[in-house]
Formats: sequence, structure tokens, C-alpha cells
Amino acid sequence: MKGWSLPFSPKGVASTLTPPPWHYSGDLLAIEFETTADTIASMLPCDLEATESTQCIAIFADWSSAADSDPRLIEDPRRGMYKEAFIVVPARYRGDTYGRVPYIWVDNEVAHARGHVQGFPKKLGEVFMSRPVAVGRGGPRREVGNTFVGTLSAMGRQLMRGRVDLSEETPISELPPMLLAPQIHTRYLPSLDPESAPLHQHSINVLTDVAAGTALSGPAELEFFDSEHEELSDIGITKVGKGYFVSVAMTVTGAKTLPAERIA
Amino acid sequence: MKGWSLPFSPKGVASTLTPPPWHYSGDLLAIEFETTADTIASMLPCDLEATESTQCIAIFADWSSAADSDPRLIEDPRRGMYKEAFIVVPARYRGDTYGRVPYIWVDNEVAHARGHVQGFPKKLGEVFMSRPVAVGRGGPRREVGNTFVGTLSAMGRQLMRGRVDLSEETPISELPPMLLAPQIHTRYLPSLDPESAPLHQHSINVLTDVAAGTALSGPAELEFFDSEHEELSDIGITKVGKGYFVSVAMTVTGAKTLPAERIA
Amino acid sequence: MKGWSLPFSPKGVASTLTPPPWHYSGDLLAIEFETTADTIASMLPCDLEATESTQCIAIFADWSSAADSDPRLIEDPRRGMYKEAFIVVPARYRGDTYGRVPYIWVDNEVAHARGHVQGFPKKLGEVFMSRPVAVGRGGPRREVGNTFVGTLSAMGRQLMRGRVDLSEETPISELPPMLLAPQIHTRYLPSLDPESAPLHQHSINVLTDVAAGTALSGPAELEFFDSEHEELSDIGITKVGKGYFVSVAMTVTGAKTLPAERIA
Amino acid sequence: MKGWSLPFSPKGVASTLTPPPWHYSGDLLAIEFETTADTIASMLPCDLEATESTQCIAIFADWSSAADSDPRLIEDPRRGMYKEAFIVVPARYRGDTYGRVPYIWVDNEVAHARGHVQGFPKKLGEVFMSRPVAVGRGGPRREVGNTFVGTLSAMGRQLMRGRVDLSEETPISELPPMLLAPQIHTRYLPSLDPESAPLHQHSINVLTDVAAGTALSGPAELEFFDSEHEELSDIGITKVGKGYFVSVAMTVTGAKTLPAERIA
Repeated sequence: MKGWSLPFSPKGVASTLTPPPWHYSGDLLAIEFETTADTIASMLPCDLEATESTQCIAIFADWSSAADSDPRLIEDPRRGMYKEAFIVVPARYRGDTYGRVPYIWVDNEVAHARGHVQGFPKKLGEVFMSRPVAVGRGGPRREVGNTFVGTLSAMGRQLMRGRVDLSEETPISELPPMLLAPQIHTRYLPSLDPESAPLHQHSINVLTDVAAGTALSGPAELEFFDSEHEELSDIGITKVGKGYFVSVAMTVTGAKTLPAERIA
Repeated sequence: MKGWSLPFSPKGVASTLTPPPWHYSGDLLAIEFETTADTIASMLPCDLEATESTQCIAIFADWSSAADSDPRLIEDPRRGMYKEAFIVVPARYRGDTYGRVPYIWVDNEVAHARGHVQGFPKKLGEVFMSRPVAVGRGGPRREVGNTFVGTLSAMGRQLMRGRVDLSEETPISELPPMLLAPQIHTRYLPSLDPESAPLHQHSINVLTDVAAGTALSGPAELEFFDSEHEELSDIGITKVGKGYFVSVAMTVTGAKTLPAERIA
Repeated sequence: MKGWSLPFSPKGVASTLTPPPWHYSGDLLAIEFETTADTIASMLPCDLEATESTQCIAIFADWSSAADSDPRLIEDPRRGMYKEAFIVVPARYRGDTYGRVPYIWVDNEVAHARGHVQGFPKKLGEVFMSRPVAVGRGGPRREVGNTFVGTLSAMGRQLMRGRVDLSEETPISELPPMLLAPQIHTRYLPSLDPESAPLHQHSINVLTDVAAGTALSGPAELEFFDSEHEELSDIGITKVGKGYFVSVAMTVTGAKTLPAERIA
Repeated sequence: MKGWSLPFSPKGVASTLTPPPWHYSGDLLAIEFETTADTIASMLPCDLEATESTQCIAIFADWSSAADSDPRLIEDPRRGMYKEAFIVVPARYRGDTYGRVPYIWVDNEVAHARGHVQGFPKKLGEVFMSRPVAVGRGGPRREVGNTFVGTLSAMGRQLMRGRVDLSEETPISELPPMLLAPQIHTRYLPSLDPESAPLHQHSINVLTDVAAGTALSGPAELEFFDSEHEELSDIGITKVGKGYFVSVAMTVTGAKTLPAERIA
């Protein structure tokens, strides 16, 4: 039997995942928002803590992905392309500040599995976002004066909607810190056996080739909606900041795992 | 009751469609292919006929659409954005040559309904195609030396797969004729009442603002696959020509309908 | 070319539909509700009118369907099986009372197409409803004392939710009139050609073999939810009546079409 | 933070899973098949081995599920109801014979997550299967003389199709052994950190309240189809046995985990 993830099989073809490096290129529609430090703390495990900054970000992302070890991600776009929506909040761990993703939804099985290996708490969702068009009037241009929208639904409920009116260019150096900050995730798999502990580790990805194109930005709107399956709308947004449309890229080559104590 | 299409409702909000003008902007992955004149004729109604040319084209399209009368197509990308896959064959009608779309699949309800109003024989399908990326290695660039792939499935069966290795620029004037040719469709709705004839009309769209960006092209592959729900794979491909990746746009403002005699 | 509906093709295999008779067997979770006569009138075309009764019904349905002319509906359950959700309001036309379906959502392409041929204003949606189980505790039994739930979403928004606590048997003769009343639909296809009128006809299905199994019934809940794509939640529910879980069947053999004047 | 699985959240509402007991009730369309002992061995980890019997089974299942700790599984059927398709092969581990599930596909996120906690190698798929109808001709009856069909697709490719013509009743005691045999799974999550071992355990569920209704059985057909994402069709079916339609139920209360050595 071969494979890098379940299911294992005689040739290793059936595995959902092949090993990194994993390459990502995508367009992000990102919207800054603030909530209270208490709210942020309520979404962190006990060994992470809120920071002075309460600057968070909500992101809709349209990704293409590849892996040196799996040509199918490119040769079958259904396997390698996907959209996701998530929020990032600032968190301090052992003295350093990281981005932390309490909630994330994705529309692709491979990306879902890759996320759980890294510790992203990915759930399935339906994400739509405006794509820049090159000619005509069917959609917005990647230019000042255009509007981009992102929406998220899961389990048949609308969860998040964002809108950005692009009004200026923003240098990469002025992008909001949570947009590309190193992230700390928690790998977790419960155990059904009372004599066996759950898998429980924090994990920080090892990234290379992080890049961003020219960002366009402007005034933004952001709404979270209620669902009996989620707690996203329990986050009280105290302020919506600017919004950004920007192309980014990165490569995941591995991760550093760290002991995690307990959830609560 | 108000509305431009079913369902009608007190405010007209529930209608799937609002009236044209309808604006379209999209990226096309288009692959030339040839089949026999007999095969083309077998997919045409009796009052259309095959031409000397047997140059056909298979297209995967990633569309954004808008309508002056429906801001929701832009404000909710789920409503206005979609992908489709289709083939176009040449057909002569009353002395003029048109593009004819015998089969087309789409992943969006509004586009499905808009298609049936125009006479496109749209069925639901799942279409995926490579998107050009701006930074990084997660997907192909819109540049010579990159590869783009499109796939189509419907009813859980793979139906079509195309691949283009971009090797050069092609001037708009040299794009294959079936890519942007005027098309003749057939509007058809059967009747359950033996005393009432089906709706049956040919229809030629009135288009404005047809535009295309710079086309990249190169060697291509194209395959049709079998399904008990389709006849796509009955088309014997005698030759696969070049492939193209190109951005296009158009506006549909209306149509000219013409009498249709009978199907067979 | 052959076929009974689009797309036409050399063998007729590609057509979404084959001709009736069409056979339907399904489980309905149906909930009585009332609204005002004005609200009902606002959802009717000008040549239909509200009745003295304002007894409406909301239905979640889990259907299996077959056609003498299309064995694929049985041999490929993906083609023939589907779920839908809809409401029925009473309407008077030329002195007779009919059921009228102002809004209906379905999760299957064949059923969507069959609906539009009949005049049902079907849109795509996601419908879920409890299934009776035969053993164990994973779901409800088809017995007094059990609870059944139905939900509807479309375009990523929740639209309707119903719940019935089964408390007694109800004879077929006491089922609510809108559950199995003859229905009057409106076939409509807009025209893009200003010189060509839309297809616009009323249509009453010719049904045979209408049957119902033993109905279970009890107290019910019903909610409509808001969506910018719908007007369902504009219906003010003034009273929720009883709910029913019942198996029904029918065969559609044809229809009688009638002239329709205008929408408003 | 609370929760039993990712994502953790302030109230624990966002978690995909809540703890067992988990209750399952479902209808199975199950088809016996044989392959070679070598083929079976090729799908087993190194510490499991093939048995003398090469009697395997392919199963399409239509499940309703519940959990004492999560009323949403019943109150929102979209959360608790699902379909899956899988195969079970016999495997010996430490002297005992178990069922082993090398491949399984499911259409529901909660069931997908529950599977991975138990060690089922679940992937997302689209499963359809005939439902017994109570009245009319829209589908088959749960009676001798009727035909049931199941289909599986994933990633837009058809993977499996089964068909059973019910010809007799089969006592529970004569059901094929792999249908309800205790199963041994492998919990596995790769690690991105070279200094951290993957999670890797075998796991045997603790089941209570296993039950089955009356089984109907008869001659069957079974086909596996090719996909570049799977190895299902590499299993050479040497014989197709009988098929069964049967309602089953069980409760999962926990599991016993066992050390797993290595994959190959």
C-alpha cells in the first residue's frame, strides 16, 4: 500500500493528498474589521492570547494550487482550483504575534484535506467572488473605480458577505498585517477510545516564495449572518476598515508542530 | 404580478430573468476540431444544412454577466458568474453561414434560463477550467509557455476534456470563424396538449459591443467521453486543430426570430 | 434529428425529456397555512382570482419518477429521483377552484424541465426532508409520536423550514383540499424579438392513477425566510394549521392548454 | 473555547462533530463480489492479511443519523441525512477476521468528519440509489419482483454502479458476512513536521444495538469505472454474487484503538 494520506491504495493514486511542497496562487478580496479583545480571546485556545491590536481581516480567496508530486492538480482544474472564505484574528503565542484562523470554509475536497493536515479548521462551504474581466461590461475590471463582492454560504445558509469599492493603489508594505502574517493553527482529531488521547498539536507552516501583486483598495462593507451551525455572527463587528483586492502566492514546504495543552 | 420570466410575483423580484441588454465578459478556452459533414448534418434541423467547411470548435468559458435591469448579477456573484462548455458547428441557413450550438452545459440557473430564452439547448453541468494567475506557481500564467485545461461533467459522468499549450499570439483576425460567428438557435418548448403546437422558432441574437482581447494559441488536445445521457461522444473527431485562450465580451440586446418547420 | 425536448440530437438520447405518460411516487411533508385573500390575489395572474378560502399548503416532496419512454429514470436514480419544495394557493378560474403553485424549487434537471413544460415556475433549490426509517434510532419512524422536518435553500439562502409532530392518522378524505387539487399552471417563455409574442398559456394537467397512502398528521411549524432573489417571505402567514406526512402517486398523461391574457 | 472537533468556538456550536453515541439507521443496497486474495492483500496495511475467503461486498447506503448530543442532526435533515458508497473486504488482524473498508465516498460533511475520526478513508462523492415507494409507479416497491439501482460518482467521474433484481427473502442469518462484520479501520493524519510522526492507529468501533430488517435479495450486477483519482477499477471482479436490499441500524459508542506499524 502506498499514499501520503487516506485512502491508501496499491499505487498511491487514491490518496487525497500528496506531500508538499504545495504551491498556491490566488486572488484575495480582503476586508479589515475590528471586534473586541474579549471576543478575540473567546476564539483562542488557552495557550494563545489576544494582542493589543484588535485588527482582524475577513478574506474571500480564489485559489489555484499545485504540487510537485501531483500533476493532477493542474491537469484536472477540478482537483487543484478552489475558493474559500475565512477570518484571521491576531494572537500571541510564546511572545510572538501570529494570525489565527478560527473559522474557514472551502469548496474543494483536496484543499479541505490539506487544511486539516495543517490545522486549518476547514468546513465545506460555497464561496463566490467577483473576478476581474479583461474586456466588456459583464464584470468589474481590476482597476480603481470598480466594485468587488464576495459571498459565503454553508449548509444552505448565507454566512458572510463583503464588498469593496476600489479607489486607490496600496503598496504591499501597507497591506493589513493579518493578510499575510505567519499563522498558528491547531491540528486536532478527537479519539473515540477513552484510553487514547486526541491528536492535539499547534502547527506553524513553513512558507517560501510568499509574494503579492499590486493591491487595489477602498471603502468596504462586511456582514456576518446567523446559522444554527456556526458562531460567526456572534462576532460583533465594531468597525469595518478598508478592503483590498490583491493577488498573492506562497509555497508550503512543511510545518513546525508544537505541543498544545488543552482546548478550554 | 410582475416579472419578465417565471416565476411571476407581486414585485417581480422572484423572476429568474430580467430583460436585456445582457452584458457578458469571459475567458474562453477554445479548441478547433473537425468531423465529417454528415456528422454535422446529423446535428442540424432539416432547414439548416452543413457547409463546405467542417471546422468546428469546442469551448470552455468562464463568464461574468450583468444586466442593466438586474444589479444582483453583479452584487451577488453567485447569480451573475458561471462557467459553461459547448461546441459550435457551422450551419447554412437561407444562404448565410452561422455558428450552431448542438450541445451546451452550464453551472448556473440564470444562465440556463437565459439560454433557453435564446434557444441555446442548455443542460446543467459542471465545468472547470484553468484560470491565469498573476503571481506564484499555483496555476498557469496568461503567457506563451503555459498550459490551460478545461473539463466538463454532467450527471456524474465526464463528458469533455480539452488542453492547450500556449505557444504564440494570434491576431483577432485569425481566430477560428466559429469562435465569434453569429449563431442561429432554436427556441423549443414541447406541448402536453395534442391540440396545441409546441413553441418552435429559430432565433438569431442581436449583439452589440462584441470584443476580444489578445489571443494566445498553441497545440491542443480534445476528448469527448461517453454517457448514456448524451450523444457528444458519437461525434467522431477526425482532426484536432489549434487551441486558444482569449477574453471576449458581448452584449445581447434582442433577437430576430424566424419560423422553424419541423425537427427531423 | 430526434428528441422530444432540447437538445435535439441524431438519436434523441440527448433530450432532457421524453414524452408522457410520466409516473410519480413520493412522500410529502405538507403543512397547512393561511394568509390573506389580498396576498393570494397578489400572486395570481389577472384572469385568476382568490377564493373565499385562504387555506394554502406548503409541501416538501421526495419523489421517484418514471416514464414509459425513458428507462433511464429508473436505471439511473440520479435522473429520476428528486426532491422539491413548493406552496399551493387556491385560485378560481372560469368558475372552478384549482390549486396554483406560485413558487417551487427542485434539485433535479429533468424535473425542472418537466416542470417548465407543464407551467410550474420551477427554480433550482436544495431540499432536505426526514425519511422514515425501518429500524434503529437514526431517524423518525412513520408512526404517531415521530417528528418530520423539511428545509429549502436556494442561491445559498435558507428559504423555508417546516416541522410536523405526527400525532394521529388522517383519512384520505380529510386531507387538506390543496394537497391533491387539480392545478392550473402558466406556461411562459419570454421573447427577445419585439415582433414575436412570448409563449403564454394556462395549462391544466391531465392526471390518472392519483393515489395516496395512509396519512399521519399533527401539529406543525412553518417559517419562510428572506432572500433578495425571492418573495416567499413577503407572504404573511396568518395561521399555521396541521401538518401531514403521506405517500402519494399520480401519472401525467397530457394537459389542456388555455389562452392566457396578460400577466398583470 | 468549546467543541468536540474542529472548529472550536466560544459555545461549541461550530464544531462539525459532537461526541458519541451516534445512532445510524439506513437502507443498504449491497452486492457480493469476489476478487483474488492478492488483490485484497494489496489493499491492506502490512499488519493485516487476506483471509481464505475472498468474499467482498459493495454497498450503497442511504443513512439517517442522530446523536444524543446534537439535536441538529434530526432537526436539520441536511446535517444528519446522507448517502454513501463503499466496499468491504475481509481481513485478518491478530487472528480475528474483520471487515475492512479500503474505499468509501460520502455526500455529507458531518458523516465525512465522523468517518475520519473512526478511520474510514472517506472521500466526497455523489451517491444515488433507488428508494422504495409506497404507492404508484414512480419507483420500485420493497417487494420481490422489483429492481434497485445504486450509482457513485466523484470528481465528475462515474465510479460504481450496482443493480439488484429482488427475487426472494433472505433471513438475517444468511446475509453475507461482510455486510455487518466488525470492521477494523486506520486513523491516519500525515504530519508536515519531519520531527513529528503522523497520527497512525488502527481502530475497531464499539457498536451497540446492531439490527437489521427483513432482507430481500436476488441476482445482481456490479461495475467499477476508471478515474485518474481512484484505484477502484483496478480491482478485478472475478465473480458477482447476490444482491440485497435491507434496512440496518447501529449505535457507535466508542472505539478501541490499536498501534499501527507502518503503511507499506
